[in-house]
Amino acid sequence: MNRVAVHGVGMSRFGRQPGRDLSALAGEAVAGAFDEAGSVSVDAVWVGTVFGAPGVAQRVLRSLGITEVPIITVENACASGTTAFIEAHEAIRTGRFGRVLALGVEQMSTAFSGPIETTDPEGLTGLALPALYGMSAARYLHDGAVTLEQLAAVSVKNRNHAQGNPRAPFRERLTVEEVLASRMIADPLTLLQCCPTSDGAAAAILAPATGAADEVTVRATTMRSGRVWDQTSPHVWGHDIVRDATVDVLGAAAIESIDDIDVFEVHDAFTIGEIVTTEALGIAAPGEGGAAAAAGRTALGGDTPVNPSGGLLSRGHPLGATGLAQVAEITWQLRGQAGSRQVESARLGLVETMGGGVSVLDGNACAMTILEAS
Amino acid sequence: MNRVAVHGVGMSRFGRQPGRDLSALAGEAVAGAFDEAGSVSVDAVWVGTVFGAPGVAQRVLRSLGITEVPIITVENACASGTTAFIEAHEAIRTGRFGRVLALGVEQMSTAFSGPIETTDPEGLTGLALPALYGMSAARYLHDGAVTLEQLAAVSVKNRNHAQGNPRAPFRERLTVEEVLASRMIADPLTLLQCCPTSDGAAAAILAPATGAADEVTVRATTMRSGRVWDQTSPHVWGHDIVRDATVDVLGAAAIESIDDIDVFEVHDAFTIGEIVTTEALGIAAPGEGGAAAAAGRTALGGDTPVNPSGGLLSRGHPLGATGLAQVAEITWQLRGQAGSRQVESARLGLVETMGGGVSVLDGNACAMTILEAS
Repeated sequence: MNRVAVHGVGMSRFGRQPGRDLSALAGEAVAGAFDEAGSVSVDAVWVGTVFGAPGVAQRVLRSLGITEVPIITVENACASGTTAFIEAHEAIRTGRFGRVLALGVEQMSTAFSGPIETTDPEGLTGLALPALYGMSAARYLHDGAVTLEQLAAVSVKNRNHAQGNPRAPFRERLTVEEVLASRMIADPLTLLQCCPTSDGAAAAILAPATGAADEVTVRATTMRSGRVWDQTSPHVWGHDIVRDATVDVLGAAAIESIDDIDVFEVHDAFTIGEIVTTEALGIAAPGEGGAAAAAGRTALGGDTPVNPSGGLLSRGHPLGATGLAQVAEITWQLRGQAGSRQVESARLGLVETMGGGVSVLDGNACAMTILEAS
Repeated sequence: MNRVAVHGVGMSRFGRQPGRDLSALAGEAVAGAFDEAGSVSVDAVWVGTVFGAPGVAQRVLRSLGITEVPIITVENACASGTTAFIEAHEAIRTGRFGRVLALGVEQMSTAFSGPIETTDPEGLTGLALPALYGMSAARYLHDGAVTLEQLAAVSVKNRNHAQGNPRAPFRERLTVEEVLASRMIADPLTLLQCCPTSDGAAAAILAPATGAADEVTVRATTMRSGRVWDQTSPHVWGHDIVRDATVDVLGAAAIESIDDIDVFEVHDAFTIGEIVTTEALGIAAPGEGGAAAAAGRTALGGDTPVNPSGGLLSRGHPLGATGLAQVAEITWQLRGQAGSRQVESARLGLVETMGGGVSVLDGNACAMTILEAS
């Protein structure tokens, strides 16, 4: 089996840009990845998108001059981009292809879903994701596992991180007071605790490792769907799937402790999401995720920097693109190219993406990747 | 690398059944596959669907008790089901998973697409697939490469085949005159030359070969997207991608000639489609595909039986399900379980699925699989 390296990553501009179609967004991301990789040829492409119309991958890639190769579009909820990365990685690892593009792309401004599909309980009942995360936050507050100020501290921290990230479109510094005073979206989650609507694309080129000095390689990956969500778990929605995937990926990486990971990009679609995720990963003890954020433990300069890019709270969440934007950030971190948001001496970085499901499963998908500096 | 076997296949009822949701359709197909395989556990699932809503795979599988495993939804136009099969095969071949379910499912009766996506030229111009195939047929007629009667002969042949297939919902025997007299859909293609609207699901269980006596194994697979469709090819749309994929798959299978394949299930979404495909595969000489069908060469009992199941013309074309229904038919053929439609002494069978693209690429995807009787 091959050792797999990330030969190049790229991101389009993120943010609301309804006038730019998917080809424009993808073109910008792929050009960046090709530029870093020093080559424009690939043998196969995996494309992650959730709301992209059938065939959009082939149309977008044709506009970039990529034709005749196998093109596989994958949907895996918020983890679609990470899934594309993992599948591309697998194809290199096993020698199936020599050089693969993983692309994630989404236009949220213009995304439209038709009539509710008959097996979709959230659609039929109107249980949207903000409401679900709001319920998790309310439960944490009720149990004394978080305070309103600790919830807000996650937004403050991630916006502080975004100061150093020109690719994050939402960079205004925030205070706890401002976060809590913003419009209520799903009690207790206010507007500034929810990832903004954002359009974008991100890409990675994967190929066998060459042994080059600044090479970033894939240490391990994992992917799973959740357990039946029957509310019998003592944890809130989305905790157990992340916990289970963490065990899987650390085992696959032969890494004994989560403390050995130097930098994390995790799924902070909502402030409570990052808090639950840090607990499920084992970065923070149960009920201590909010306190860890408020105390700066998960900030740049803290013990365990989480979302140095500013996360989804600063970048927005174009669904299919998110996982590959996370991969790009960790790649830049491990190369020491992250500028003022650089995590010192980062050697191991973890990408975590989780989403979907809500009332059916404890997460439709959680995908994780551990990248390593050579 | 493992030799991969098809341990079980299954199909739901096909045909218009708008009252049955995707879980009901998938459940019927998966139950059949599990029944043949003698086990209900799988380590991962690939699901092919084109119009399935985001998350539908996880919801459907949850209803079947399949949770916690990796679930990857793939879209690859008409080849989505074949793509799911090929990806599942790859996971077994490389030892990534021990036992994988490939599922294809589609509800065409209730499928709905929203506003036309901005990179979709066919959607924007109204160039639907029947029109495209109609243009191919008109070109063939103009060139003297086919007659109206030869076009109709494909429908007559496939409906004759369907007499022996209780799983084909459209089984009425037809005459050339009836086919030509049916309502015009896209000149010169009449209603009975177009695959009917159909809902359904099909499934396969893949695992390493055990060496059992009646085992069906995967000899080779291939998948590709088309060239830029700039009308400079001397061939009609969809020819070159099938020709190129044929070269790939025969090479991968180390099979010298297409004549060594005993039975074919190919993409006869329209009569002209089967004709062009048999020429691109090399079963018929250029311009001889229609004559081959009319002369019975591609009929059961002929030299090269094509679509013994009755094909899409008799089964309909629930997009994501089609490729796996083709795999199911070839599996039954190679096991000698095809009853009155059995191709005598079939040892090698080929599945071909192609579709999508129209004005952008010469096919968004062509996927092929060669299966082998042990």
